[in-house]
Amino acid sequence: MSKLQMCHVTIQPQNKTIEVLGGESLLEALRKENIRIVADCGGRGKCGKCKIKISHISQSPTQNELKALYPAELDNGVRLACEVKVNEDMVLELLSPDDLYTMQHVIEGVLISGELDSHLVKEYVTLTPADLNNQTDDLQNVLNYLEHPVQANLPLPVLQTLPELIRHTGHDVTVVVSGDEIIQIEPGDTRVYQYGIAFDLGTTTVVGVLVDLLSGQVLATHAMTNPQHVYGADVISRLNAVLNTPDGQGQLQQLIIGAFNHIIEQLSAKSGIKRQEIYEVTVAGNPIMNHIFLGVNPTYLGEAPFIPAYRKSPVYRAAELGLLLSPAVPIFVLPNISAYVGGDITAFLLAHDIPAQNETILCIDIGTNGEMVLLHAGEMVACSVAAGPALEGGQISCGMRATRGAIERVVFDDDAIYLKTIHGGRAKGICGSGLIDAIAEMIAWSVISETGAMQSKSDVANRILRERIIDGEQGREFIFVPGNETESGMPLALTQRDVRQVQLAKAAIQAGYNILISEYGLKITDIDRVLVAGAFGAYINKYNAQKIGLLPAVEPDKIEFVGNAASAGARKYLVSRAARAQALQIIDQVRYIELSSRIDFQDAFADGMFLSATI
Amino acid sequence: MSKLQMCHVTIQPQNKTIEVLGGESLLEALRKENIRIVADCGGRGKCGKCKIKISHISQSPTQNELKALYPAELDNGVRLACEVKVNEDMVLELLSPDDLYTMQHVIEGVLISGELDSHLVKEYVTLTPADLNNQTDDLQNVLNYLEHPVQANLPLPVLQTLPELIRHTGHDVTVVVSGDEIIQIEPGDTRVYQYGIAFDLGTTTVVGVLVDLLSGQVLATHAMTNPQHVYGADVISRLNAVLNTPDGQGQLQQLIIGAFNHIIEQLSAKSGIKRQEIYEVTVAGNPIMNHIFLGVNPTYLGEAPFIPAYRKSPVYRAAELGLLLSPAVPIFVLPNISAYVGGDITAFLLAHDIPAQNETILCIDIGTNGEMVLLHAGEMVACSVAAGPALEGGQISCGMRATRGAIERVVFDDDAIYLKTIHGGRAKGICGSGLIDAIAEMIAWSVISETGAMQSKSDVANRILRERIIDGEQGREFIFVPGNETESGMPLALTQRDVRQVQLAKAAIQAGYNILISEYGLKITDIDRVLVAGAFGAYINKYNAQKIGLLPAVEPDKIEFVGNAASAGARKYLVSRAARAQALQIIDQVRYIELSSRIDFQDAFADGMFLSATI
Repeated sequence: MSKLQMCHVTIQPQNKTIEVLGGESLLEALRKENIRIVADCGGRGKCGKCKIKISHISQSPTQNELKALYPAELDNGVRLACEVKVNEDMVLELLSPDDLYTMQHVIEGVLISGELDSHLVKEYVTLTPADLNNQTDDLQNVLNYLEHPVQANLPLPVLQTLPELIRHTGHDVTVVVSGDEIIQIEPGDTRVYQYGIAFDLGTTTVVGVLVDLLSGQVLATHAMTNPQHVYGADVISRLNAVLNTPDGQGQLQQLIIGAFNHIIEQLSAKSGIKRQEIYEVTVAGNPIMNHIFLGVNPTYLGEAPFIPAYRKSPVYRAAELGLLLSPAVPIFVLPNISAYVGGDITAFLLAHDIPAQNETILCIDIGTNGEMVLLHAGEMVACSVAAGPALEGGQISCGMRATRGAIERVVFDDDAIYLKTIHGGRAKGICGSGLIDAIAEMIAWSVISETGAMQSKSDVANRILRERIIDGEQGREFIFVPGNETESGMPLALTQRDVRQVQLAKAAIQAGYNILISEYGLKITDIDRVLVAGAFGAYINKYNAQKIGLLPAVEPDKIEFVGNAASAGARKYLVSRAARAQALQIIDQVRYIELSSRIDFQDAFADGMFLSATI
Repeated sequence: MSKLQMCHVTIQPQNKTIEVLGGESLLEALRKENIRIVADCGGRGKCGKCKIKISHISQSPTQNELKALYPAELDNGVRLACEVKVNEDMVLELLSPDDLYTMQHVIEGVLISGELDSHLVKEYVTLTPADLNNQTDDLQNVLNYLEHPVQANLPLPVLQTLPELIRHTGHDVTVVVSGDEIIQIEPGDTRVYQYGIAFDLGTTTVVGVLVDLLSGQVLATHAMTNPQHVYGADVISRLNAVLNTPDGQGQLQQLIIGAFNHIIEQLSAKSGIKRQEIYEVTVAGNPIMNHIFLGVNPTYLGEAPFIPAYRKSPVYRAAELGLLLSPAVPIFVLPNISAYVGGDITAFLLAHDIPAQNETILCIDIGTNGEMVLLHAGEMVACSVAAGPALEGGQISCGMRATRGAIERVVFDDDAIYLKTIHGGRAKGICGSGLIDAIAEMIAWSVISETGAMQSKSDVANRILRERIIDGEQGREFIFVPGNETESGMPLALTQRDVRQVQLAKAAIQAGYNILISEYGLKITDIDRVLVAGAFGAYINKYNAQKIGLLPAVEPDKIEFVGNAASAGARKYLVSRAARAQALQIIDQVRYIELSSRIDFQDAFADGMFLSATI
């Protein structure tokens, strides 16, 4: 294609088509049309701010794009305008900052298979009215008509209204059966309405996904911060609240129930689906979250020998838990593997059908705890490590959670440090993904050594970086944002102690996966795929995460960010009986290693303190 | 034994021993000792008031005693002092009027077999504490230790406290299993504490019996008036309250739940058994009562085609119904046979093991409805008739329920009418048993004809009776209590209309049992036994009831008053798995005849209007 060829670029949402000379960068072409797109680095592919979305494009992402964009963004057609050369007709969409945070799969996760085999059955029946010669009672009349095998039981509220119901509907009713239990009887033919909610009950975020059980289709999604955050960001602070607050356990439970009810309301409002048409609920959460949700004392999860009250939770009812659904709606909590490897990890394995894979796969979910499962030769081994809050911005002097104003991306250049804050604007602090970038760049530019020691000015070659090193009250510091670029006007610095916190966190995770591979006598390079779950996973730069050893040093394209795997697994559990059976198998198949009883863990942890991916 | 022999009579509770000349009547002997016992008839065996209780006595009851005493009293050693001739040493007990109303079997009923085969199992287990190498979760740990097969479920409140429980008891716990469901887990070894309550939920009276499930022994009994009586005495008035009172159904349900909770409290107080040690509850009641108890709309039971919401009730939990027991305690409602032949009748059949008998047996329960079951050649057929309230004193001009001041016994003599009021004292009105006596005596003394027509003065031979016939405002009346013997000072009379009410009631019942025997082509004389249940049955004079045709004209000793058969059956259901299975068989074995669809019922009813037992 000749460079002189003119291409047509249609810009949405304005629906304006411009002519662009073949070979010109999209950023330049847009600027000529007075469409101003922010590009702090001047269009050199560094700052990652000139994002646009293109439906179809032949050109593969450049190295700069791969570095600057989240996998979820790449999957959704997001590109950097400065890196795209216009060589064909295209339709592009300008993005608002918020769009970048609503990539569906970050919230809902990815399902590799969507087998539809619902646990819910609706049977529409027209009963024969009883008469003086046919004295069949109402309950038996209903039971006689069902093809599906059911228990001869009815929830009390259903029995209580059964006589009126069948007589006021001309004996035309739909019987709602969950498994082998009748949970509702409804007037008329309601078979087309069959919905369920899959909840991801995260320590940080609670996500509900409303699913059509007949098609498996997602009808609405709603995410909110776990309201327990007022008691602290991580599970340990929640356990402390249970122990030290009067009725802390009850309060924490009620916060979750309240969040679920809010999400139920939102999902109903967004989709137009009535709450009474929602018949099953699944919940994937870590054991501390699911224990608190059920009102079960979680404190023994936090004390050796770390024993959960249950792995397979019995099924309870909406009314028992205070959920604003029909009283008998069953709540299925995905089974836990151990005290720290919970239903969220079971969901992860389920979503990606891990037990059925023939490769060697490391599944990893990073938060304040890192949970990992390694599949090898059809066997699975799991562990959990306490990473601490550093990777979520906790216990870092200028750290913060990944909310508006947090620095989430850091790129050093010869003459500048490029920063990206969440939702744009001035920096307020740094979150986990920014921290990983910052540490990786500080190593790359020799601001810190591979042991994590902050270098003296004289050891740093780059003039700009060298000037950023100062001696603060608590030792050496590196000012990565000067005061004139921050919201408060005060500079943001990383201290030697901050670097140590990141080292501790990544050492724990690295020790975890190293122990797992050593269980099978493998090397890191034997791993075929690394699946990284969680919103955190979706936002970190995998090259930098590998550079510091947080993710294993495999070929980068073996690392996949799978978004909210807990939500995806909860969704699969919701729509598939086979998945439910598989989940129960999974928790028995996975061999859990309690690391606190392992001598080799201390060695692996010590090795992991080095800021490199060497094995 | 010579008449001159001196016998020793010890009088309780005074513990005083007197010497009595052989052959003297006990009444005379006591009078000589200045122990005054009321005997309105002057010691002629007519008024039935000189009751005493004798532990052992050779002399059989006289005809007068058989006529004057309730079967329950005879069974308990109650005799008439005027009829007993002292011919041996004896210990007698003076009775307070209240004693006569607490005969256990009237309240609890009679159980012909007491097979002990409890549905409840307690297993005491010492769990192995989990450790870093044995990461068994708490629930699984418990399940692993049980010998009894159970579902892998726990009630939510039990799961919620399980972690603390097992750790605070040194892992020594007792698991309480009802059927195959764990309903409670308790610290330590509590196997000796296994209690249940059998409720008889009567329209008039609610009775709770606390039973030791290990021994079958009754530990305490408490009876109270059904507090729904404020809405009317019979089931039809209760149905009207459901239909016509705002939230009538809810109010009626709460009255029953309140009564149950009061009884639970009383049983606990009387026995010293803690409420938490009560694990199962059975409830025998007519369908309208058990529907209201469960909060199920009962109105369709009262409208053709008379269909119950259920015959076999699902099992609900104490917490669902608001009963103040451990939340998961299962409530077993005895199954109903039809809209009017309920769990109380199933209980009756169960208590007396009717299906297993080889005889032809008529079981009859008389109230405002009469329910009847006829066993013949191993088959059972049942019906229900609306007797109306007359036999409970309703719609009778001077009628009242069987409470203090009601005339419960009437004997005509040449020169007097002897009356007995409940708890003694002046008459306030007449209850069912008194009414049956009165009608029978009015026929015997030709005050009314066999068609029920009140005779003119000239047709009555006896002078005293003749004077009692007057012409009142509403036609002819018979004054059977003059004003100077009543509480109000106003005479009590039976009108022609009152007699008709009794005729209608007994006609319905007579038609009922005649239809049943005609189903098998039998005659009344083919009946081997007639079992009459209910407190009413225990208090009526069977000779008089037969005389007017209310009870069939079999040999009188074939008629047995079995007291509270519903309570006895509920007790059997409580302690025996076999009985539960049998109850479910019974409701399928009994063929129910809905009489409103039967042409022959009208004929039988018309025949039954005659006041005689002729068939």
